[in-house]
Amino acid sequence: MRIDILTVVPDLLFSPLNESILKRAQANGLVEIHIHNIRDYTTDKHRKVDDYPFGGEAGMVMKIEPIFNCINKLKQEREYDEVIYTSPDGITYNQKEANRLSTLNNVIILCGHYKGVDYRVREHLITREISIGDYVLTGGELAAAIITDSIVRLVPGAIGDEASALTDCFQDNLLAPPVYTRPAEFNGWQAPEVLLSGNFAAISKWQEDQAFERTATLRPDMLEE
Amino acid sequence: MRIDILTVVPDLLFSPLNESILKRAQANGLVEIHIHNIRDYTTDKHRKVDDYPFGGEAGMVMKIEPIFNCINKLKQEREYDEVIYTSPDGITYNQKEANRLSTLNNVIILCGHYKGVDYRVREHLITREISIGDYVLTGGELAAAIITDSIVRLVPGAIGDEASALTDCFQDNLLAPPVYTRPAEFNGWQAPEVLLSGNFAAISKWQEDQAFERTATLRPDMLEE
Repeated sequence: MRIDILTVVPDLLFSPLNESILKRAQANGLVEIHIHNIRDYTTDKHRKVDDYPFGGEAGMVMKIEPIFNCINKLKQEREYDEVIYTSPDGITYNQKEANRLSTLNNVIILCGHYKGVDYRVREHLITREISIGDYVLTGGELAAAIITDSIVRLVPGAIGDEASALTDCFQDNLLAPPVYTRPAEFNGWQAPEVLLSGNFAAISKWQEDQAFERTATLRPDMLEE
Repeated sequence: MRIDILTVVPDLLFSPLNESILKRAQANGLVEIHIHNIRDYTTDKHRKVDDYPFGGEAGMVMKIEPIFNCINKLKQEREYDEVIYTSPDGITYNQKEANRLSTLNNVIILCGHYKGVDYRVREHLITREISIGDYVLTGGELAAAIITDSIVRLVPGAIGDEASALTDCFQDNLLAPPVYTRPAEFNGWQAPEVLLSGNFAAISKWQEDQAFERTATLRPDMLEE
């Protein structure tokens, strides 16, 4: 799998993409992640990536030209399955979409910044607009990092323990049950007896009950899907 | 405002917290952000931050002791308004919660990792569990970065143009209208005539209509709130 991220703040993405699981997945050849500085695709002498909005609203708008140039160059090199734009008014990102994206070969993610991109980019170059949630960020870089992280950890071999991914939240429409580890007692607070019992049938039943109960209390909407 | 972030992967947070608006807000004394490596609060010789879960599930669980030690030390130094845990089964984060958090003085954010934290941490030390969306990440570090970014940009003085924040998505329960910038024509694609007309009443009406229409089409749920 290959992910190309287009941004005006490439340095922001450095540490999230070069630690932990994403670092190992790249080192092991499971995924290629390429960061492109949109400024490198400008053609004017001031290397302008943004300009004032038509109509005089506050804020700056990302120009279409350098984005067009960058996406065009990439598309000449290979076929892309999706050209994603991160925006608070995109479709709401969820685990189902993460699962789908993790099966694709080549994906471009364009990070919005400032007041957003010239709308013609969205009309003509973008195939999928994704929002990671109903809140406003400085830019789409963290959203791109989130999408990348959530996808790459699903690529077979990326996380050491695949059984762990299968028991994650959302994969079976249930929240995860509470987890505990040593010591069994800390500061007067006890871990549940049943988990220490060695009775695996009872443990498994307790975990299922807790997962169901927590979902019914905290996220009843998940049970209706 | 002061934000303390507790993590087992402190390096991952480096670049997101030291670029763009977050960098400037810290340089200008508007916000202090402190990263704490949970491993520094272990007391055993192997500096263990995680251990196998009771009951034998797959994955590793973050131990209570070092987290307890770190939070305790911070609480002895100052009062905290919230101790946040980032978890996919927390309350769903949104702009309203970002607005609320941006008015607080001192906030701790504990990043989950591996299979999550020992549940006693959540029962006894955490005051607010936040999910940034219905998807699973490698760890809570990116979620903490997202929360930090969305809060800090609301602190007065953090972004250059405050009028820009007021016209952001969500602040008035509407999606933002499309934006365009020069050139007016690119690759045969035109920016809307009205935005170039200089007729500010017409522009303003067009923007309002577009904002409403986009919201009604893409996110009708926002209009019902």
